Amino acid sequence: MQKHISFDEIARMEQLYRSTFVNSLSGFKSICLIGTKSKSGKSNLAIFNSLIHIGANPPYIGFVSRPNSEERHTVSNILDTGYYTINHIHQDIYEKAHQTSARYNADESEFKETGLKEEYLNNFYAPFVNESKIKLGVKFKEAIPIKVNNTTLIIGEITDVFFPNNCFCDDGFLDIEKAGTITGSGLDSYHTTRRLNRLSYAKPLKLTESIPLNYIQNLSNE
Amino acid sequence: MQKHISFDEIARMEQLYRSTFVNSLSGFKSICLIGTKSKSGKSNLAIFNSLIHIGANPPYIGFVSRPNSEERHTVSNILDTGYYTINHIHQDIYEKAHQTSARYNADESEFKETGLKEEYLNNFYAPFVNESKIKLGVKFKEAIPIKVNNTTLIIGEITDVFFPNNCFCDDGFLDIEKAGTITGSGLDSYHTTRRLNRLSYAKPLKLTESIPLNYIQNLSNE
Repeated sequence: MQKHISFDEIARMEQLYRSTFVNSLSGFKSICLIGTKSKSGKSNLAIFNSLIHIGANPPYIGFVSRPNSEERHTVSNILDTGYYTINHIHQDIYEKAHQTSARYNADESEFKETGLKEEYLNNFYAPFVNESKIKLGVKFKEAIPIKVNNTTLIIGEITDVFFPNNCFCDDGFLDIEKAGTITGSGLDSYHTTRRLNRLSYAKPLKLTESIPLNYIQNLSNE
Repeated sequence: MQKHISFDEIARMEQLYRSTFVNSLSGFKSICLIGTKSKSGKSNLAIFNSLIHIGANPPYIGFVSRPNSEERHTVSNILDTGYYTINHIHQDIYEKAHQTSARYNADESEFKETGLKEEYLNNFYAPFVNESKIKLGVKFKEAIPIKVNNTTLIIGEITDVFFPNNCFCDDGFLDIEKAGTITGSGLDSYHTTRRLNRLSYAKPLKLTESIPLNYIQNLSNE
């Protein structure tokens, strides 16, 4: 049996109920921890569920920021300093990652409060999450206002990528499932994944094929 | 062991290799089929991996469109007619969904070519995917240019939601995993999910708790 809910019914929902419902509709979300440091040197860490691929060349990544107090520190640090980190979340840290969304006082760092470890790599200004397996250093590029609801699309350029050696395939594919990256749904649901397949580039009148995962052995570090 | 790849190394990658790599970095993606119909009545169906929640009140959803020929029909139909559908993808249809990305001639409908069934619900102008379990009717709201790489964020208002009766919880949460919605990574990898937990609203100095899934029994239809 199929249920139908209309725009008017959504409009009449109680606020938290509506937020829970509508946040379920956009499918599985990319969740991450964004690390920043203020000009005065105070670190900040916040979970986001709106990460989005913007482009590969140059490598651009985006996220949507809502005008609320928890996320404001992240965005003001990004605008002030120009740098931030994006850290994938895995099964062992998702509860601590979720906990970063609590309304801590401005003089408390979420690293200290949650026990996640601050890490500085490659002289990058913003802190990475030590426990995270896939970490991106990102340089702020543009803040695009989304006027219809006063949110902002923050776009940055990926300057550094750190990942486990054994997850890299010979065609450039990074196996984030092998690295343990998890996904989210709604506002508060966390999920591991299991690969069905990689499918070859689709062509008319031709059945798509599986792409084998050829992990690069003995990957050298620079 | 941890591997580091820099911006300069990304810039030197061969184009498809780079696209495969950078598309892996943004985590698990929300994948969906977007259904449209031209003013002359020709239907179109295309897979997108950039769906994003924009807001709950009003209910806004977005996706990023790249300036290539396959996606152009979707966007031009949206701009011409004002309406489109967003259809979740599950395990039984993901190969057909992937196949919609082939470069079919302009006079061929991807519904016909892939065998997915066109469905019209509630007098909505654009076609839904019959096989899909969670389906959204969406009214175009705004096209926001992302100037750094000539892409566009398309934002629409959710006017209709269709979903299976047994997936709806009493706090507004829609269990998309129970409905079979899958997720994607990179350009071509498809994954089922398994829930770790739903976590309660985070508060300072308080451990977060599990939220039980209380499915609504005997949900009435309107």
